[in-house]
Amino acid sequence: MSDVFQDALAGLASIVGDKHIIASGSDQEPYVVDWRGRYHGRAVAVVKPGSTAEVSSVVRYCAEKRLAIVPQGGNTGMCGAATPDDRAGNVVIRPDRMRTVRDVSPLANTVTVEAGCILAEVQSAARDVDRYFPLSLGAEGSCQIGGNISTNAGGTAVLRYGPTRDLVLGLEVVLPDGRVFNGLRALRKDNTGYALKQLFIGAEGTLGIVIAAVLKLFAPPRSSALALLKLRGVEQALEIMARLRGAVGDRLGSLEIMSRSQIEAIAATVPHVTIPFALTTPWYLIVELTDTLANVDLNEPLAAVLADAMEAGLAEDAILASNLAQAKAIWAVRHSVSEGNKRSGYVVSHDSVVPLERQAAFVANVEARIKAAVPHANVVMHGHIGDGNIHVIVLIDRARCQDPAATAALVAEINEIVDDETAAQGGAISAEHGIGITNRGRLARVADPLDIELMRGIKQLLDPQGLMNPGKIFGAGAASR
Amino acid sequence: MSDVFQDALAGLASIVGDKHIIASGSDQEPYVVDWRGRYHGRAVAVVKPGSTAEVSSVVRYCAEKRLAIVPQGGNTGMCGAATPDDRAGNVVIRPDRMRTVRDVSPLANTVTVEAGCILAEVQSAARDVDRYFPLSLGAEGSCQIGGNISTNAGGTAVLRYGPTRDLVLGLEVVLPDGRVFNGLRALRKDNTGYALKQLFIGAEGTLGIVIAAVLKLFAPPRSSALALLKLRGVEQALEIMARLRGAVGDRLGSLEIMSRSQIEAIAATVPHVTIPFALTTPWYLIVELTDTLANVDLNEPLAAVLADAMEAGLAEDAILASNLAQAKAIWAVRHSVSEGNKRSGYVVSHDSVVPLERQAAFVANVEARIKAAVPHANVVMHGHIGDGNIHVIVLIDRARCQDPAATAALVAEINEIVDDETAAQGGAISAEHGIGITNRGRLARVADPLDIELMRGIKQLLDPQGLMNPGKIFGAGAASR
Repeated sequence: MSDVFQDALAGLASIVGDKHIIASGSDQEPYVVDWRGRYHGRAVAVVKPGSTAEVSSVVRYCAEKRLAIVPQGGNTGMCGAATPDDRAGNVVIRPDRMRTVRDVSPLANTVTVEAGCILAEVQSAARDVDRYFPLSLGAEGSCQIGGNISTNAGGTAVLRYGPTRDLVLGLEVVLPDGRVFNGLRALRKDNTGYALKQLFIGAEGTLGIVIAAVLKLFAPPRSSALALLKLRGVEQALEIMARLRGAVGDRLGSLEIMSRSQIEAIAATVPHVTIPFALTTPWYLIVELTDTLANVDLNEPLAAVLADAMEAGLAEDAILASNLAQAKAIWAVRHSVSEGNKRSGYVVSHDSVVPLERQAAFVANVEARIKAAVPHANVVMHGHIGDGNIHVIVLIDRARCQDPAATAALVAEINEIVDDETAAQGGAISAEHGIGITNRGRLARVADPLDIELMRGIKQLLDPQGLMNPGKIFGAGAASR
Repeated sequence: MSDVFQDALAGLASIVGDKHIIASGSDQEPYVVDWRGRYHGRAVAVVKPGSTAEVSSVVRYCAEKRLAIVPQGGNTGMCGAATPDDRAGNVVIRPDRMRTVRDVSPLANTVTVEAGCILAEVQSAARDVDRYFPLSLGAEGSCQIGGNISTNAGGTAVLRYGPTRDLVLGLEVVLPDGRVFNGLRALRKDNTGYALKQLFIGAEGTLGIVIAAVLKLFAPPRSSALALLKLRGVEQALEIMARLRGAVGDRLGSLEIMSRSQIEAIAATVPHVTIPFALTTPWYLIVELTDTLANVDLNEPLAAVLADAMEAGLAEDAILASNLAQAKAIWAVRHSVSEGNKRSGYVVSHDSVVPLERQAAFVANVEARIKAAVPHANVVMHGHIGDGNIHVIVLIDRARCQDPAATAALVAEINEIVDDETAAQGGAISAEHGIGITNRGRLARVADPLDIELMRGIKQLLDPQGLMNPGKIFGAGAASR
């Protein structure tokens, strides 16, 4: 290690203490490689500050020494946004030791948490006072709330509660120069100038490090009902959604769709999951209603909409879960999509979002174009149809993916088809996963140049040295401006 | 008029047409004076472009000629944010001719509107397809949706649906250099970089001109129940709110509080309003529950919470409205606060927001300090207690307000007390009214200098010439940077 880096290690250790710093070597592995193993970076140190003041000092130190800073949460992101690049001078900052639930108020319906809190801990802190924090996603047992905020995480409750952005009342952020943006206020309304906190939500740590947040809580759902519908097409799912809204208003909690090919991939590869219904149509829709009151009969209105939909020819069949076990068996299929796809082949996944009524055209066009271009591809789909966010997953026989260059070319070809169709339907290439490293080239290709110019201007304003999470969102060029 | 301004008039007329431009003179009066008559500005022209392209051309023209641009909606704002200053070279841009509801989709729960649409028209477009646009405020018959978005308007539905910011999916904005930010997308999720659209919401037209928006719609409320509670203090209102949340979850629609002094001011001065209950306690709380389903009995759970609250000593008395007429009579009191206050004296009003559980201390301290400083002041209060936003209104005998300088000093003294107490309680000086001209000095006094620095940086980035609505938010200094 060079003297410069030895000095940096010593300097950082003097701020956070020897115990809370990991020098380069095998102990660093979990922090410099993303959880899927796609990106392998390097770092002079991984530091774990214990307070806002320590984060601030670490950042000031890095700014002075021109060391790049990579804020990292639970390292569960989908796009490599928390992984350092391969320059040796990176400093990874993790808030693992800042894990206090500072305050929870059932009266104000708020919880104040430090960035290192695991999402499941935030949910649990809410439950303890008979309240509900709705953000829910696969990694909730290990992802950190600071990362959820920095990536504006989505998940399964967006339909009713919105993405993470909608759940944040206040934020504390350490800026790239080490100063602290003090927006940690539990205010439900605030019209005193520009919405600065919004800049940091979803910025993937490129504008600063989220340190603490005040989050909204809600009344917990206490009644629910669930059904599975068999459909001929996506159009029918949307029509059924409209009827549900008319019939049950805001009790519509989840609306998840899967293609027959998606369920077949699970059935063929995930032995512990049994598909509790026959596959007789191209599409399957899970509908869940919830109510914040206990003992509300939601089965009755749900059954009425199902009967109505079948009579109108919108659904071929409908199964109303008559007990919790049945409901769980249906959800188990939905929760196995990632596992089933991984076991079925090389996965090329997408996260497009389009206006709701464009979804049918989007999936039809994308599937046709991919199958024309790559006849051996298996296209499966699942997603949040109430949000306009259907994940198009292309599964390729692993035997065909032995050559990295050819595989990369194939992935690029598929991405281009999906991105062009997304743009043609007025959509965006990432609904919830973000840009990070994975999608920066795609964003540069499809985004309005004016948007990129404005984003770069904001980046330059807050991080003129380009040291805060370089290479994310904008591509490598933006790292050094 | 100087040759320069004659040229400007001709140049602008060549873009929008002679019919759609108003030169200086008495016809301009409604556009250069705010509706309350507090600010009197000047303009070389008021222009009414008919399309995004025309707005863009007008802005380009102004940028080239260094004419200041003042975007104006319905001119119903509370802080003078849409009124030009007294420099002769201002150009007021109004979107009155851009008033089309471009699309309304009950399926996607969205409405796409042009900036000149009156708020009531947006509500009505939603109703026509059996949907609900929740933004609701006193000026809804004349305010424009572009202004609502630019000021992040609040109103009476924030408790359940959030402020305007939470209702905006997509935005089209003409930037200070005339380029068009094309974020007019009906996407419920979008994680492709920084949240640019958020910058323009609530920026009071200082960063660009909102031209069109995609807004969220909801299932309409179809059942409701209303009660009035008599309380000893604000603490009790918060405790009752917590119990209501536990009992009825998200059916809590409105929670409006008034002080006894507030109701007495109405009783003494507004002859057409009868107070339908005896004034026996210091505070009065209106509770309204709503449900998106028809024929839901909300009276029963409301009555149960009221009985519970009285038994626990939280409420001295409670009146459950047994029919619509009774409910209307109670709402009529709340809707008369502005009229009653205006008739009761010179009005010094405030729009502070504090964390919910700080409201009791906030109102007690503010009232005590104002009465100690200004013994003849009548302090009345009303507001949205579920949002932490209690308006503190100080009524002064008009006979004492004959001298403008002395009155200004008195107002400044009162503002300072309220602002200091707001800061002490972790609050913000404007919950929903904004900054504009009225509050720019107060913001400069209480805001974190870092926040102001970041805001000025964003202003400089988007509007380097300082021509877009100069003098708003930052004070006169920011107009020319």
